Amino acid sequence: MNVLGVHLLLELRQCNPALLNDIDHIRDMMLAAAESVDAHVVGESFHRFNPQGVTGILAIAESHISIHTWPEYGYAAADVFTCGSSFHPQVVADLLIEKLECLDPYIHEIQRGMIPQTVTT
Amino acid sequence: MNVLGVHLLLELRQCNPALLNDIDHIRDMMLAAAESVDAHVVGESFHRFNPQGVTGILAIAESHISIHTWPEYGYAAADVFTCGSSFHPQVVADLLIEKLECLDPYIHEIQRGMIPQTVTT
Repeated sequence: MNVLGVHLLLELRQCNPALLNDIDHIRDMMLAAAESVDAHVVGESFHRFNPQGVTGILAIAESHISIHTWPEYGYAAADVFTCGSSFHPQVVADLLIEKLECLDPYIHEIQRGMIPQTVTT
Repeated sequence: MNVLGVHLLLELRQCNPALLNDIDHIRDMMLAAAESVDAHVVGESFHRFNPQGVTGILAIAESHISIHTWPEYGYAAADVFTCGSSFHPQVVADLLIEKLECLDPYIHEIQRGMIPQTVTT
């Protein structure tokens, strides 16, 4: 089987709530994460909600990095989706965990696009 | 436990390859999907890659809908992330499956943000 993408689902618990509510920090962090793996950003969308919470999404070629934050719970749901060889998603995950001062991260890794080998030859 | 988000990971196999490579179709489909559940779109990013493939991302308040397509495999990886009560993600999933003429969909549902009840009271 070929695998087209690797998708990390990050459950980021016990983060610093102030950082989770800081849209500039979230955007700087995500752009730095993309830069750290030489990813080519093709689109971005960042929004702060009332009374709190931030959504940030970076489109990166056939990949994306997204985050939704709940400062009131010290929690963020982040996703790092990469197609096969473009970059190593764990590097991005580690940076998000560090920059949000996350004390209790959990990472769920899922293979996306399990394509039978016969199709690809 | 409270659950903050429901995340559907759609493995869309045996789709119509021409539709997977049609950025206008992908964008119309995703905006229609958002409209069908009265979701408020706060940002969008759509890109077509060379030689083929489309990435589309809609930011929807504390939610998102994303898709990455591989026309050469008739495959798309789509994600529908919703926070608790905002809309029912299966409605969006059904529409994507129909609009891509997908013959072999698989949906993986993941609960995001399992927060102990004591934190919320």
